[in-house]
Amino acid sequence: MQAEIISIGDELLIGQVVNTNASWMSERLNSIGLDVFQITTIADKKQHIIDSLNSASGRVKVVLITGGLGPTNDDITKSTLTQYFEGILVFSNRTLKNIENLFAARSVPVTEINKQQAYIPDNCVEIENKVGTAPGMMFEKNDIIYFSLPGVPFEMKEMMNNFVLPELSKKLSLPAIIHKTILTIGIGESFLSEKISGWENQLPSNCKLAYLPSPGQVRLRITAFGSNAVELNNQIEKQIQSLKKLIPDYIYGFNEETLSEIIGKILKSENKTVVTAESCTGGFIAHLITSEPGSSNYFKGSIVAYSNKIKTELLKISDDVIQTHGAVSKEVVELMATNSRLILNADYSIASSGVAGPDGGSVEKPVGTVWLAVATPFGVISERFLFGNDRNRNILKAAITALNMLRKELARN
Amino acid sequence: MQAEIISIGDELLIGQVVNTNASWMSERLNSIGLDVFQITTIADKKQHIIDSLNSASGRVKVVLITGGLGPTNDDITKSTLTQYFEGILVFSNRTLKNIENLFAARSVPVTEINKQQAYIPDNCVEIENKVGTAPGMMFEKNDIIYFSLPGVPFEMKEMMNNFVLPELSKKLSLPAIIHKTILTIGIGESFLSEKISGWENQLPSNCKLAYLPSPGQVRLRITAFGSNAVELNNQIEKQIQSLKKLIPDYIYGFNEETLSEIIGKILKSENKTVVTAESCTGGFIAHLITSEPGSSNYFKGSIVAYSNKIKTELLKISDDVIQTHGAVSKEVVELMATNSRLILNADYSIASSGVAGPDGGSVEKPVGTVWLAVATPFGVISERFLFGNDRNRNILKAAITALNMLRKELARN
Repeated sequence: MQAEIISIGDELLIGQVVNTNASWMSERLNSIGLDVFQITTIADKKQHIIDSLNSASGRVKVVLITGGLGPTNDDITKSTLTQYFEGILVFSNRTLKNIENLFAARSVPVTEINKQQAYIPDNCVEIENKVGTAPGMMFEKNDIIYFSLPGVPFEMKEMMNNFVLPELSKKLSLPAIIHKTILTIGIGESFLSEKISGWENQLPSNCKLAYLPSPGQVRLRITAFGSNAVELNNQIEKQIQSLKKLIPDYIYGFNEETLSEIIGKILKSENKTVVTAESCTGGFIAHLITSEPGSSNYFKGSIVAYSNKIKTELLKISDDVIQTHGAVSKEVVELMATNSRLILNADYSIASSGVAGPDGGSVEKPVGTVWLAVATPFGVISERFLFGNDRNRNILKAAITALNMLRKELARN
Repeated sequence: MQAEIISIGDELLIGQVVNTNASWMSERLNSIGLDVFQITTIADKKQHIIDSLNSASGRVKVVLITGGLGPTNDDITKSTLTQYFEGILVFSNRTLKNIENLFAARSVPVTEINKQQAYIPDNCVEIENKVGTAPGMMFEKNDIIYFSLPGVPFEMKEMMNNFVLPELSKKLSLPAIIHKTILTIGIGESFLSEKISGWENQLPSNCKLAYLPSPGQVRLRITAFGSNAVELNNQIEKQIQSLKKLIPDYIYGFNEETLSEIIGKILKSENKTVVTAESCTGGFIAHLITSEPGSSNYFKGSIVAYSNKIKTELLKISDDVIQTHGAVSKEVVELMATNSRLILNADYSIASSGVAGPDGGSVEKPVGTVWLAVATPFGVISERFLFGNDRNRNILKAAITALNMLRKELARN
């Protein structure tokens, strides 16, 4: 069965905002067995919205609309849909209550313009917005289901996960589709592809493999189609078992897991703690660790030592060592890790020192050169990497590579 | 005048690839005075391509197609366009030469499948591909101009910049369009809208305003249409001057500027330095500051004090103060800022202490409660905020709010 997405928003058509909503929604719709036939991006204009709804209604059974539900004058999706489905706007006390609660939680009075958001069409099923003020809407007409969702990504995602996807699975008889994503790190896409080509070629015809690369990582998504979800799950698990034997060192997790989450689980279960001492990553490793709920149980803190003076004064690395080997060196990064582990009094420490760029490179240590170290109760390990030319990608790659070094040490001990 | 973009590719419809090409192209087309009316994303299917071309041809005078020009069987754009415009494929020696040169530069022999790419329709203007094997094509029919470009971003961009945009500017008499984005922080969309409604309503009819909210910030985009770019620029600048008088405290920058960039420029020009002492933001403020190239000139480092012990040992805050007022308090956050400023030896320091959630909240200090402080050579300021329930949004909001507090102090001094 097929669906279409209509993305509404001038900001998408002038190139100010990239349409990440549509790709996220496509991926989620796919996961429940719905193919996306077309994505149409249009402006906040009434006639254009109506024309797009007419076209999509002639092609598919499910239409998802995002955007144009804000409280301001340029947001006209709700009034247009009310007219299109021949309803009238009525005041919803339930929606007002939701808006009031949201503002009360922030200790902010409800504005008149936000109160207007409590008007909804009388012929739709209202979708509660648990994280924002604009309610979503579901309409049904001529056997076609329509959803109107906010354009704000986290509001849209909340409604997709908790209303739209369950509702579609319930209403439609969709084929069984099972996805599982295998998370790999430390090997590039083409090398990985060579290493697993034999395995890839023997996959049964109802299984599809997709490579999803991102900086420093490649996710492998297996999709299996069939009639029985339990059988498909077993089939995928069997394939993953044989893949694990091929690339045991590169797989770190599955599906939506993150490195920080995996590390956090191990540290928590073993009652161990971690700290960081960061130069080129500038606090980003600490940020990734603390993005995880409950990280205060195992993360104690960090010393971000961008200047050499902080390396000497706070991390107690002698000026001699820095002068002799340079701040970007095995010696300095290992001392950053071992000293911070003692100073901040933790079981493990991660340290980074490198040239993120665009300035600061040399022939010997070009931009992208990064030393990473992990200190443990049993010693210290370190490794030199050469990433690329892009500053923010270098920071990101260094941080996840460092977290992966810690993960491996935790697995080994 | 209006254009449409048709993006062809299965990978876009399963959510594997985000359609960054379309937003980039929209931005470029806008810059020469062409509005993008619609972006249509479709699969590599012949009939769907033809239907989309027919629809777009009924609406606009310029149609840009990307994707489906690769050498493999699933790429059918070229054969479809040849048929659509009633031409035949002929062998182009010029294109073959280009392909041969490209492979020679990489010391790789030309494959048979790549040689096939030298066939092009006899009724198009060939667009040379200087960085890849697939040539682009330009067709004209019934006063509509069509371009077919590769989906590989850097090949598409090269052709856009060096052929498509100059060609369009030459062929069409385009109006001038000027955009300017005003960056605001510290005021929600609905409050902002109420505050500036008078100004918004007096905007001339050739000016459009759009609200673009993101966590903690709202960007306002003014677009002006006309015949003379210089006049439009003056018109926009005049409107911005009167907006500035209405909301002087909330505007922090324009267009693509970031808070870190603005702060960095001020610190660099005044030869001042900054450090951070972070609890609930866990290093994220330091990360935002160090995302900026050249930040090592003014950022010295950070102490991330997640545990109270690090607050006492490294930040020298007495255990008494923490016990009396709690770690999330005016007293503690101000000491974090003033002490770190001295310990890390900088001109300015930013500090954070709060309950990011989901755990750790209380009646008195619910999840989302965050104290922020900025220490300067002239003293310390602090403020209590109540953000929301989402951990990562709280971290993000706290970090940008803290950066904005520093920006204001820098502007004041």
